[in-house]
Order: sequence, then C-alpha cells, then structure tokens
Amino acid sequence: MSGRLKKRMGENRKMLLEEYLETKKRIVDRALEEYLPKKDGFSSEISESMRYTLFAGGKRIRPVLCMASAEAVGGSADSVLPVACAIEMIHTYSLIHDDLPSMDNDDYRRGKPSNHKVFGEGVAVLAGDALLTEAFCLMSRGTPEVSSKKTLAVLHEISTAAGFRGMIGGQVADLKAEGEKVDMEMVNYIHTHKTEMLITVSVRAGALIAGAGEDDLNALSEYGKKTGLAFQIADDILDIESSREVLGKDVGSDEGLGKATYPALIGLEESKDRTRKLVEDALSNISRFDEKAEPLRMIARFIAERKS
Amino acid sequence: MSGRLKKRMGENRKMLLEEYLETKKRIVDRALEEYLPKKDGFSSEISESMRYTLFAGGKRIRPVLCMASAEAVGGSADSVLPVACAIEMIHTYSLIHDDLPSMDNDDYRRGKPSNHKVFGEGVAVLAGDALLTEAFCLMSRGTPEVSSKKTLAVLHEISTAAGFRGMIGGQVADLKAEGEKVDMEMVNYIHTHKTEMLITVSVRAGALIAGAGEDDLNALSEYGKKTGLAFQIADDILDIESSREVLGKDVGSDEGLGKATYPALIGLEESKDRTRKLVEDALSNISRFDEKAEPLRMIARFIAERKS
Repeated sequence: MSGRLKKRMGENRKMLLEEYLETKKRIVDRALEEYLPKKDGFSSEISESMRYTLFAGGKRIRPVLCMASAEAVGGSADSVLPVACAIEMIHTYSLIHDDLPSMDNDDYRRGKPSNHKVFGEGVAVLAGDALLTEAFCLMSRGTPEVSSKKTLAVLHEISTAAGFRGMIGGQVADLKAEGEKVDMEMVNYIHTHKTEMLITVSVRAGALIAGAGEDDLNALSEYGKKTGLAFQIADDILDIESSREVLGKDVGSDEGLGKATYPALIGLEESKDRTRKLVEDALSNISRFDEKAEPLRMIARFIAERKS
Repeated sequence: MSGRLKKRMGENRKMLLEEYLETKKRIVDRALEEYLPKKDGFSSEISESMRYTLFAGGKRIRPVLCMASAEAVGGSADSVLPVACAIEMIHTYSLIHDDLPSMDNDDYRRGKPSNHKVFGEGVAVLAGDALLTEAFCLMSRGTPEVSSKKTLAVLHEISTAAGFRGMIGGQVADLKAEGEKVDMEMVNYIHTHKTEMLITVSVRAGALIAGAGEDDLNALSEYGKKTGLAFQIADDILDIESSREVLGKDVGSDEGLGKATYPALIGLEESKDRTRKLVEDALSNISRFDEKAEPLRMIARFIAERKS
C-alpha cells in the first residue's frame, strides 16, 4: 500500500469515527434530556446541579461503547439506550464526588468550575447521590423489548462494577495512595477498579441486552478489559503531556508525581507501549466479529491515539 | 374496663412489641452481616466504614415495617429480607451523608462519633455511595420465590422514593431551609420527602413482594404515609424534649428554632396532637386487616409514644 493511500485510509477512518461518535453522542444527549428534564419547585436546584455536570460536554464514551457493543452482536442501539444513559449518570456522579475538596479537590472539570464550586459542597454531594440513584431508577423502568430477568441481571452487574467491589473500591485505594509510595499491584488495582470495570460493564451490558451468546460475551468482556485499562493509562499520559504543553514545563516527570499512575511507575514511553499493546489485544479479542464490530475497533484505536 | 386491667393490657402490648422488634432486629442484623461481611485487602477500609454506621445500633424500623407489612397480607418475612436490608442500607447511607460537615455537620450519631469523624470526609462520602450502590446490588440479586418482574418493580419504587423526587429532594430542601423563614408547605415538603416516602415504600415493598391485592396495597400505602409523617414529627418532638432533659433548658422553643420542624411552626402541644391524629388515621386505614397486622398496629402506636 502506498504511503498516500494509507494516509487517506487513516483520514477516512478518523472521519468515520468522528461521525459515529458525534451521531451516538447526540442520541445519548437527547435521551438524557428526556430522562432528566429541567424541574421546577423545591427540587429545581438539585435538578439543576445534576444537569450541570451531566451536560458539561462529556464524550459519552461509556454509553457509546454500550451501544456499539449491542450493534456488534446484531442488536439495536435503541434497546440499550436507558442502560447506556444510566451508566453515564453513574460515571457523572463519580466525577462530582471525585472533585470534592475531601477527595481530589478539583475546582475545574472540563474547563468549567466543578459542581461544588457552583452549587456548594452539600448540594454537590446530593447531586451525585441523586444521579447514582436515578441511574437505578432509570434502568428499573425497563423497556418492553427486554425481559425483566435480563434487565435485573444487567442492573446487578452494573451495581457490582460501580460499588465497593469495583469503582468505589478503586477510588478509596486512590485516595489512600495519595502521597504514598505505590507499587504496580496497587496501581493496577486502582486502574482496574476505578476505570476499567465500569467500561467493561458498559460493553457487557450492551451485548447482554442484545442477546449475545457466551463466546461473544466473553470476547467482548476481554475487549472491554483491555480497552478500559488502555483508556486509563492513556488518560495518565495525556494528563502529563497536556500539562507539559499548557504549562510549558514537565510537571509529570516519570517519577515523583505523587499520584498512582503508570507513567509515574514505568515512565512515559513504556506506558505508551503498554497502551498500544492493550489496544492490539483488545482488537485481537474481537477479530472474529464482522464489520458490525467496526465501531468498537475504531473506538479502541481512538483511545490509544486521542490527543484530548 | 378497669384502670388496672387497661394498664396490664398496655404493659402486655409493650412487652409483645419489644419482643417483636427485638426478634426482627436480630434477623435483620444477621442478614446484613451475611450480605456485608468484613473484607480484607484494598477494600478493607471502605468495608469497615460502611459497617461502622450500618451496625451502629439502629432500630431497623424500616426493614421491620417491610417485614411486618409482608406478614400483614399473609406473606413471609423471609422473602422480603433482601429488600428490607437494602432499604436499611439506603437509610444508613443517608445518615452518613447528612452528618457531613457540608450538610448537618453532626459529630455524633447515636452517641458515637459520626462516620466522617472516624474515617475522614472522603471515605465517609464513599461509604455512603457504596451503601447506596450495594442496596441496588443486593436487591437485583433477586430471590427464587420472587419474580424478576416484581423485584424490578419494587426496585423502581424504592429508587424513586430515595432519589431526587423523594428523600434527596427533601434533604436539599432541608439544607436550603436552614436559617430561612419556612412555612407549613415547606415543612410538609421536607418531612414527606425526607422521611415519609422511604417509610411508605418500606411498607409497600413488603406488601408488593408478598403479593398484596390492590385494595390492601392502597390501605397499607396510606398507613405508611401517616406512620411515616408521624415518625418525623415525633422525632422533632423528641429532639426538643430530650434536649430539654439533657441540657436542663428549653433549647427547642416553639419559635426561633431555625430548623424546619412542626414544633417550630405550630408548637409542641399541637405537634403532639398531630402525631396522635396521624397514628389514629394510620390504624383506621388498616382496621379491616386481621390479627396478622397487629405488629403494624403496635409499631404505629409505638412511634407516637416512644421516648427515645
């Protein structure tokens, strides 16, 4: 293949991905707007606070993965939409609580003041609580085309991945690791629990609802695990490289970062290698799927290559 | 009836109730211990923090109401145990978050240091999050004798009552009302949302799982609403009277309390009358039930008469 053709194909793929992500993001945004409309009366402020972070411009990676996974096994994206949106609510609640002064103490999130800076800590805690609760409220509404048994099983998996056996366990470990000397086992625990498990369950939920067989489900779970971990390492890398660009200095040197990250432990270049390797593994896990899995493939590649 | 006989019957009833509550509390405690055992490893601290408040000596009123309601319509207490315990987890998470410095800022809960005083604010927020998530994880496990459809419907009702349309909505309004001049509409909104709705859904959940018919369910819902509101007003009254006793002064005068309570708005005596009236209504709502509803009757009376 000539260099020019390869480049054109790469550009083509990038356009296709952008179009796919944009289309799906719009579907998710519209659905979230329908599920969580503006409220009046005594609950107006909590509703405003929930919506503030929910509509703060997230890329909707988790719901898109959920829909893409359903499509990969021949299902429809529509039938998984409530569950996909519920996962985005869970993700959003975790961002609000992570930003609190008693946690990561972040004043900004995606360039805007974080929830507690706008609504105060009390309301921010409650907005997080409310988004988490609403996620289960939304999932348990059910949809006619999905059996109650399946909905319940998916809800169970999601709550397990989001709870203290999963995401919350990772956040506690992260909190405790701050300023401590951490080893690879700890970093792996934090990354898998805090990030990977919710991403994996997004992929699994889509496939489960779409009626995937056991082999497909296992393959997609592996895809989810690799992609989820790659996503977090790529995030750590981006954190360092964007700080470097913005601040014009190397804030995230390989050692001495004080945070439990891959780059801090094994360096930037080795971390990039790991990410690429994980994405390759993710792709090979779903190699036997047909072109309906193309969005999943594009997303995995995008995760390793993205610049923001 | 002679005064002595009446007194003896009253004492008898009190003994029966104490025995009933003690027996059921033990069942709930044992089940919670099974559902949430001690953990080792990286998640030991979050598990410790969750268990600290969960086993801090609560009366387990909500799960007991759930079981008593199932029994009132001829069902078994056992079959509602997971849901009953899940509701207690939701109640416990709300206590942990309510005590946070950014909310009610309470250093003590039931005579012990509150969760964040022991584990720090970050872990306390996460322990609350984890209990809330675990409640849905537990409910969605399901039990063989209850259909998935029914479990999902109950889970949906509980998440609605606990979310921003219910309990969280009440807590936000309470937070906003602090130090403000509030009227009866506001106090009613806070009380019904913050307390009554979770109590009502406890009663409803028990009845629904036990297969109650529509008439029974409606009657029990009304019982729940009256009992739930009575419970909160009685709590406000107790708060004043126990402070009076302990501190030897009237901290909770009818006006100027600064908190949105019935006594602050309509005075102590009028509040007591309301509580009694609500309990009477609750009892009359379930008058057509047979002796299997006796525990529900005892609990309603206990709520108006309790001294702690």
